[in-house]
Amino acid sequence: MASEPTRVMVAVNESTIKGYPHASISSKKAFEWTLKKIVRSNTSDFKLLLLHTQVQDQDGFDDVDSIYASPDDFRHMRERNKAKGLHLLEFFVNKCHEIGVGCEAWIRKGDPTEVICHEVRRVRPDFLVVGSRGLGPFQKVFVGTVSEFCVKHAECPVIVIKRSAEESPQDPADD
Amino acid sequence: MASEPTRVMVAVNESTIKGYPHASISSKKAFEWTLKKIVRSNTSDFKLLLLHTQVQDQDGFDDVDSIYASPDDFRHMRERNKAKGLHLLEFFVNKCHEIGVGCEAWIRKGDPTEVICHEVRRVRPDFLVVGSRGLGPFQKVFVGTVSEFCVKHAECPVIVIKRSAEESPQDPADD
Repeated sequence: MASEPTRVMVAVNESTIKGYPHASISSKKAFEWTLKKIVRSNTSDFKLLLLHTQVQDQDGFDDVDSIYASPDDFRHMRERNKAKGLHLLEFFVNKCHEIGVGCEAWIRKGDPTEVICHEVRRVRPDFLVVGSRGLGPFQKVFVGTVSEFCVKHAECPVIVIKRSAEESPQDPADD
Repeated sequence: MASEPTRVMVAVNESTIKGYPHASISSKKAFEWTLKKIVRSNTSDFKLLLLHTQVQDQDGFDDVDSIYASPDDFRHMRERNKAKGLHLLEFFVNKCHEIGVGCEAWIRKGDPTEVICHEVRRVRPDFLVVGSRGLGPFQKVFVGTVSEFCVKHAECPVIVIKRSAEESPQDPADD
């Protein structure tokens, strides 16, 4: 088949409980669902575009016990965070290579909702897959959901993959 | 590959401008997108579940010039409407057979939002594809969108395929 592969963007992030380099339950689920239900054995007809957004405030929060004495300390911190993000992407890229599906992976800093919609406009995937923690209405008020924002604002078709009940931690916000 | 095919439910409806047996621009687009971007050449790994909901009021509206003199007249009308729905499904089923992808198609009467969500619970597809007319906020108030309801309430992943600008009629509600 000579036509261009279907380009599927998958938004991936780290676990809020375990941190880097662990992928969140919901983004791992969205990734695995895409391989199992869409790509299947047809690996040559798909290309996965793996986007990881590093949330800056969240990363900064890990560093409350750090002491910064020089400009270099901040540079080291930034490099360390970048390395953490790379380990996360490595997990997904390795899986793609194992099964033989083409992929590209990259990191952006910022608010995931804005970054994802911006990257959709920039790279023009055929569709976007995002995981969802499946929060109830009460939890959504405080946590917000990236997936809902993408469904409304991303300029491409979006498919939201919810975690199944047995995959969810006791507090659904832990992912 | 011995595993079960991916079961994709596609909601199809007739054109509001042309009526039966013409498929709406948006449901034809959703169907063709699914074949082109998801199924591709891998026809044996997918099964399409084509659901057409007949809106009862809308169909009744076509019959304002009819005269009913006996119970049989109503039966004939119902049979005619059913036949119209069958012609619509025939269009989609023929396309599936042409390219060699398995399918099942059926008709339900009622409100599309409720029927689609009910059928999702009943047949448990891997995901649901719905077309969207891409209405603006003003038009949505009066017309409502089936796709938005499905995204919120259907108990499976949902992908909404919007019509492209060049496919849209002058009045986006005509589809």
